[in-house]
Amino acid sequence: MSFCILFGGKSYEHEISIVSAIALKKLLPQVKHFVFLDALHNFYLIPIQNMQSKFFSSKEYIKAQKIYPKKDGFYLRTFFGEKPLNLPILINLIHGGDGEDGSVASLLDFYGIPYIGPRNPACVLSFDKELTKLLAKGRGVLSLEYRVLYRDMPIPKNLTFPLIIKPARLGSSIGISIVESQEKLQYALESAFEFDEKILIEPFIEGIKEYNLAGFKSKEGMRFSFVEEPEKKKFLDFEKKYLDFSRTSNAKEAEISEDLKLALRENFSKLYENLFEGALIRCDFFVKDNQCYLNEINPIPGSLANYLFKDFQESLSQLSKALPKPDEIKVTYEFLHQIQFAKGK
Amino acid sequence: MSFCILFGGKSYEHEISIVSAIALKKLLPQVKHFVFLDALHNFYLIPIQNMQSKFFSSKEYIKAQKIYPKKDGFYLRTFFGEKPLNLPILINLIHGGDGEDGSVASLLDFYGIPYIGPRNPACVLSFDKELTKLLAKGRGVLSLEYRVLYRDMPIPKNLTFPLIIKPARLGSSIGISIVESQEKLQYALESAFEFDEKILIEPFIEGIKEYNLAGFKSKEGMRFSFVEEPEKKKFLDFEKKYLDFSRTSNAKEAEISEDLKLALRENFSKLYENLFEGALIRCDFFVKDNQCYLNEINPIPGSLANYLFKDFQESLSQLSKALPKPDEIKVTYEFLHQIQFAKGK
Repeated sequence: MSFCILFGGKSYEHEISIVSAIALKKLLPQVKHFVFLDALHNFYLIPIQNMQSKFFSSKEYIKAQKIYPKKDGFYLRTFFGEKPLNLPILINLIHGGDGEDGSVASLLDFYGIPYIGPRNPACVLSFDKELTKLLAKGRGVLSLEYRVLYRDMPIPKNLTFPLIIKPARLGSSIGISIVESQEKLQYALESAFEFDEKILIEPFIEGIKEYNLAGFKSKEGMRFSFVEEPEKKKFLDFEKKYLDFSRTSNAKEAEISEDLKLALRENFSKLYENLFEGALIRCDFFVKDNQCYLNEINPIPGSLANYLFKDFQESLSQLSKALPKPDEIKVTYEFLHQIQFAKGK
Repeated sequence: MSFCILFGGKSYEHEISIVSAIALKKLLPQVKHFVFLDALHNFYLIPIQNMQSKFFSSKEYIKAQKIYPKKDGFYLRTFFGEKPLNLPILINLIHGGDGEDGSVASLLDFYGIPYIGPRNPACVLSFDKELTKLLAKGRGVLSLEYRVLYRDMPIPKNLTFPLIIKPARLGSSIGISIVESQEKLQYALESAFEFDEKILIEPFIEGIKEYNLAGFKSKEGMRFSFVEEPEKKKFLDFEKKYLDFSRTSNAKEAEISEDLKLALRENFSKLYENLFEGALIRCDFFVKDNQCYLNEINPIPGSLANYLFKDFQESLSQLSKALPKPDEIKVTYEFLHQIQFAKGK
């Protein structure tokens, strides 16, 4: 089964998406089509031999073939008009803005273009960390307590340290700081507000256990990856981030009890079902006092969390057969006919 | 100040949107441009003299000029290529699917086309009645208790009657029933499941007080309409629905205490701020034991709830000056340059 990879986007995670797409190219030799969305919202068809970071950072990509989405697919302009491209199923690999905020999902659904990736409501609820907490609460999944702060609010007092400051709508650790004391708060807030006008404050729990689990729904039901205990890091530098998004070899499976594995899967399913269908997502959990707490949902994880699956290719193929169908809505004019009749027109 | 009205959409409320647009045409003589979105997702530019229900119900509209959205505006195809239309600010008047689920908002934002109406996250949170309840809870606004049911779940037992069954993602009273007893439950559920695979069950409280309030944020802060106590109705027939969406004359102001008015406004602001900017919305509240409960948020109310404003034209003009600015995100390739440097490439 072949796919087409959509990457880039107008977002702070634009470069990370390029790294991620190059990783998937290595992993999925059957993928022959790459669609790049640049920061100006132009789409380009990228020849496979150009799928190297330099092609983008040097801006050579602007010489590639421009394409555009339309009813049922992408098109390119020809001398006499336009031509459909007939690309295989798209994988939405745009991390952050455009990809994870629902813009691209809405666009693809509007034009009836099939894709692997979270649908619009799933994007909106996982893109904003406050909404993710409300979702978790609504579905009976625990998460850490938090406070929301907007740019125009005064700096809060009486906080308990250490705490962690996160822009509400960014992934990939951008703008995140751990704050040990009141004096360091202002700087951390300013750093986070550079990326978003809304931030979340959470307690920082030193040494808390972290577990990552990926999965998706196939026609036969939920399918889970193995669980990974991610490497501890207080800060992510660019090298760590690069390694994170370019991973192509299997991670080490966490040594955890069967009970914990089941609890993680149960929480994952509560979050996933009736919302994330069509997407392969990764949920990151904390475990404290034998309880699972949702940390965050990655609706489009770096290089699709391939490193957590023993059968990544087969998983993608299963997922592609279980994509949500668009709503069948029949528009009629019965109501208007009734009005016209009632009015004698 | 002139506007352009966008209406129609692939939705059960398609016809209602046509009625709504015709009402606004009467009310806003400065509006000269109407853009119709049909059920197949084609856009048409409708000449003002054709803004009559028959033009749509007879499908004459397919002879109108087809247009399409692109970077910075709508375009039409010409013999030699294409031509921008330079329409004034759009008012999103597509009720229900497409308009209120975030599809059209995402599309317009993606292409950088300015519009009055809720942005994508605001749409997603108000389109699904369960998410609206989670939002209200997160923001300290009360709402009635509820249960969610999906199509594949067994019919619940031990419910307290009377109750009200609502499709989770539909407005305009479609698919709603009041159920007095267990025997009548199955039929009501089946009726609701015809429109959505997710439904909400709420207690039905006979004679509860209802108050509607509309508003928006201007550059000077929140602006509110007067409060209306809507007419009681157990069921909405098509005539009532037509009257609701075609209202163009002022409603009667509710006779309520200053305290209640302030409480309604306070709850409205809690829901609106940092989410609905750019939109004129209507919040429908219940009042029970001196407490306000959110019933629902109409992010694109019928004929924009003009009948609640004493200065509707002036309100629209104020709103159009306070539209959210798109995020300024500068995409750089620093990270990729660093990687290339680190790898010695």
